[in-house]
Amino acid sequence: MKISETAKLFHTKDNFLLLTHKNPDGDTLGSAAALCSALRRAGKTAFLFPNAEMTEKYRSYAEPFHAPEGFEPSFTVAVDVASETLFPPCFSGEVDFCIDHHPSNTHYAPKSLIAPSKASCGEVVLQLIKALNGDLSEEEADLLYVAVSTDCGCFVYANTKADTLRAAAELLDFGADNQTLNVKLFRKVSRARMKIEGMVYSGMEFYRDGRISLATITQRMLLEAGATEEDLDDISGLAGRAEGAILSITVREQSDGSTRFSLRSSPEVDCSAICSVFGGGGHAMAAGCTIHSPVEKAKRMMLDVIDEVWK
Amino acid sequence: MKISETAKLFHTKDNFLLLTHKNPDGDTLGSAAALCSALRRAGKTAFLFPNAEMTEKYRSYAEPFHAPEGFEPSFTVAVDVASETLFPPCFSGEVDFCIDHHPSNTHYAPKSLIAPSKASCGEVVLQLIKALNGDLSEEEADLLYVAVSTDCGCFVYANTKADTLRAAAELLDFGADNQTLNVKLFRKVSRARMKIEGMVYSGMEFYRDGRISLATITQRMLLEAGATEEDLDDISGLAGRAEGAILSITVREQSDGSTRFSLRSSPEVDCSAICSVFGGGGHAMAAGCTIHSPVEKAKRMMLDVIDEVWK
Repeated sequence: MKISETAKLFHTKDNFLLLTHKNPDGDTLGSAAALCSALRRAGKTAFLFPNAEMTEKYRSYAEPFHAPEGFEPSFTVAVDVASETLFPPCFSGEVDFCIDHHPSNTHYAPKSLIAPSKASCGEVVLQLIKALNGDLSEEEADLLYVAVSTDCGCFVYANTKADTLRAAAELLDFGADNQTLNVKLFRKVSRARMKIEGMVYSGMEFYRDGRISLATITQRMLLEAGATEEDLDDISGLAGRAEGAILSITVREQSDGSTRFSLRSSPEVDCSAICSVFGGGGHAMAAGCTIHSPVEKAKRMMLDVIDEVWK
Repeated sequence: MKISETAKLFHTKDNFLLLTHKNPDGDTLGSAAALCSALRRAGKTAFLFPNAEMTEKYRSYAEPFHAPEGFEPSFTVAVDVASETLFPPCFSGEVDFCIDHHPSNTHYAPKSLIAPSKASCGEVVLQLIKALNGDLSEEEADLLYVAVSTDCGCFVYANTKADTLRAAAELLDFGADNQTLNVKLFRKVSRARMKIEGMVYSGMEFYRDGRISLATITQRMLLEAGATEEDLDDISGLAGRAEGAILSITVREQSDGSTRFSLRSSPEVDCSAICSVFGGGGHAMAAGCTIHSPVEKAKRMMLDVIDEVWK
């Protein structure tokens, strides 16, 4: 459906439940929360499905909109959820509508508003809220800034387009406080995260004249830093900062003694081909696999396979 | 002068020399190089004053436009240079015109185009080039993207406004390759820089329940990491990443044995008041000073003064 048709349809519905995806990120939570606020301004009853997998980083944006126990929705909208396999745990209802920007969306909902050219779902919801209410509240602008900015790493990732920047500019016009939000979302990290980064950078290994960079994170390091899973958000990005590295590898010792690999590369190396040797998979430029061996042995196995696959 | 008047004036002039500021950054170099290219497209002879202080990071953008030896300019334009004290070393000519965005501009030039509301000089030059030539070349769009994006830390710094994001969007429309440029400018770092970051994060100290974060960089660390001054670009930003830190301090051991402090804070602490005790200065939220004592002793002196000034 188009934006305007979607807005018209939403005006005829009530008792909205908005669904975010598994392992929810800023885009799904910020987009759903903003839409929830806008629906309420349009006179509707609307809540978010309480996503149990939400992390502390985004809790304050979404939790105020969580549905109370016993809320009976009559219209359920999935926001930024590309397929039914990405429904959050414990959700068992039917979805009536889907708003998304993933080109991989499986069209599982009876009706959808999908804009695959957009970098974030927040950009789609921005247009929808304007169509619904004519404007955005400052809170909605903040929430959509969370959505748009986190999905493109504050406009640094490759998915950032002119439209992404224009959407962000419009959100600032509507009162989004990018100054405060940028500090919270992109600048501040926990002390445990800083410690882990210190250990990762100090222990970086380089191979093939620096064309391969390798970062290792062991259970012992996590213990020493007092780090939890939340402190490791996007940790696979660190190894790739190394100038000259074409293939970056992040090695994580698992609590069961196996070793998890995350590979990222420039187009000249096929990460997926390498990881598939160990039963893993992914894309050409980002893939992963698990080797059921201790870290040092697993690293050697991985480097041997890389030597074979990438001549 | 206004944009349109400036464009008209420039059309009547020729043999342009474009001047960048001392310790040139992406904004002064990118803006001057883009303007140089645009003036040439307008049929003019134009060169950049070769700024000897240029770092490797920006060399490839500016150097192709450097004036040959013996070039005799007839119209000199300072770009992003707020005062005569910021002229680069070895420049001795007269400035005929100044294009700038700093509110502190001293109006030293006979004629100026100053837009103090803009986050970067690149945004002013974008308007000027459109007025001069009607459009931008892809190269000019790239150069101005370097200018705009580096001056706001890829849209994360507090100076990022709606206009900044719109200017960047327009540059993408004109063909700026933000994907490639973002990787070069904001993602990749030298191996020496990674090592230094590892050491800094591993050695972070916290005081007053984490409200003070302190990073130390010694001569020995630089030697061990093989780091040069260029690898330390914006290193004072690292300590401030710590969640909960209101005052962040970066301590650098100097080669003469003295100790250099850089302080950054939230509004509740006056960095300038602290640094002035040691004969330093700056702003309330960012200041610096030198203590002529070895690192450990100097740190204790600094922390004692902080305890006195910040109750």
